[in-house]
Amino acid sequence: MMPDGQPPTACVLIIGNEILSGRTQDTNLGYIGQRCDALGIRLTEARVISDDETAIITHLNECRARFTYVFTTGGIGPTHDDITSATVAKAFGVALCRNADAVAALERYYEPGMLNEARLRMANVPAGARLIDNPVSGAPGFQLQNVFVLPGVPLIMQAMFEGIVDRLAGGPEILTASVTTDVLEGAMAKELGVIQDQFPDVSIGSYPWFRHGALGVNLVLRGTAAGRITTARGAIENMIARLGGHVLRVAERNGE
Amino acid sequence: MMPDGQPPTACVLIIGNEILSGRTQDTNLGYIGQRCDALGIRLTEARVISDDETAIITHLNECRARFTYVFTTGGIGPTHDDITSATVAKAFGVALCRNADAVAALERYYEPGMLNEARLRMANVPAGARLIDNPVSGAPGFQLQNVFVLPGVPLIMQAMFEGIVDRLAGGPEILTASVTTDVLEGAMAKELGVIQDQFPDVSIGSYPWFRHGALGVNLVLRGTAAGRITTARGAIENMIARLGGHVLRVAERNGE
Repeated sequence: MMPDGQPPTACVLIIGNEILSGRTQDTNLGYIGQRCDALGIRLTEARVISDDETAIITHLNECRARFTYVFTTGGIGPTHDDITSATVAKAFGVALCRNADAVAALERYYEPGMLNEARLRMANVPAGARLIDNPVSGAPGFQLQNVFVLPGVPLIMQAMFEGIVDRLAGGPEILTASVTTDVLEGAMAKELGVIQDQFPDVSIGSYPWFRHGALGVNLVLRGTAAGRITTARGAIENMIARLGGHVLRVAERNGE
Repeated sequence: MMPDGQPPTACVLIIGNEILSGRTQDTNLGYIGQRCDALGIRLTEARVISDDETAIITHLNECRARFTYVFTTGGIGPTHDDITSATVAKAFGVALCRNADAVAALERYYEPGMLNEARLRMANVPAGARLIDNPVSGAPGFQLQNVFVLPGVPLIMQAMFEGIVDRLAGGPEILTASVTTDVLEGAMAKELGVIQDQFPDVSIGSYPWFRHGALGVNLVLRGTAAGRITTARGAIENMIARLGGHVLRVAERNGE
């Protein structure tokens, strides 16, 4: 929890033209979102921006002032289009420096003679940054104040995210449950709204699905009190029975 | 092209807690990104925000002032958590009105007796809005000035997007080519940067891949002049040969 008693918040900045063009499908947001739930951090926003210095500086400075944590993904490789590290330094108004520990990590990863100047660029981090270990491919990320700079390749990002978990102050875990039914949204919307009003501390989302010619709805409950989620789930299952429908599947993640 | 000779720009506002929690994987951004490329519209930003009135109003008003077009996805169904239409009306400072054409569309879609009050809510749109036809499931989206309000379900969103294409002023199509190689990023970064400097009108992106134990890079070229992309692609293929690597695959989308 934060000193003011509010749960911490987070924003993800996805940096990369390839996501905006549709060439690459981002999966990092979903991963970070699930981890934030478990850590009790409210991930309430994400932005996808291009590899553009002005865009990165503007959004980073706006978001780091508004959120407890900002996670960036992408743009920390060795090529000309990898401008995240240098641009984060500019956004903070600090110098970009070659970091000795980062150089050592690269030296451990690369075969002798392979660590050329382009690869050494990946050891340049903003002054004052704390490195984030990369157990997969050597080149580290870094943390500067409340900003965590991570790579875009999902498997590497995920491995590095686990290395920063102990630097994050969390809150109560956000628990979820879901009920899948063949009752359609329009048929239950009124009654579902009444249940939502009865459980203001449980966020109930309604998501229609279309599969193999069948239609239905996935109802997702989110909150921090396991008992309240279970009770609200019971109310939803009763509603489905009253409407003559079926509960096709129930899932609950109660933090155990 | 816009009156000032600049190509039009766009932003996608993805509205939905389920995307932020990682429960649902967004695919709408990629679709809209690819369509914008073909239409010559520069999609330079996307934001993922929660189903929260203040968040929607703040981001919508900021983005509609900054971009030629804003496309929103999500939150226009019949349930309590579908607040996009009412909130867009508030953001524009106009009333939310029941639209007779939207009611007629719903009446055509639903079996007699199935069009209840919850479903009729989907006919409520901001005053002055122009409807966007939904050929899949009846409930329309709408356009208000430069904002296009679309649903979250991908197949429905895609069908409705095609219905607004003739309302969008485009620019020169953004063409792409890609070269897949087994040369690693760090091995070619310096030479690739030289090529990028020689082709400032072609954006060259470098994306590492890891598959079946093999490593390599996908180089993506983007621009509006087909000849320049082809020439830059030739320079890249020559570079790969000089470095002793292989061109594994070439793809070019030249607008034909």
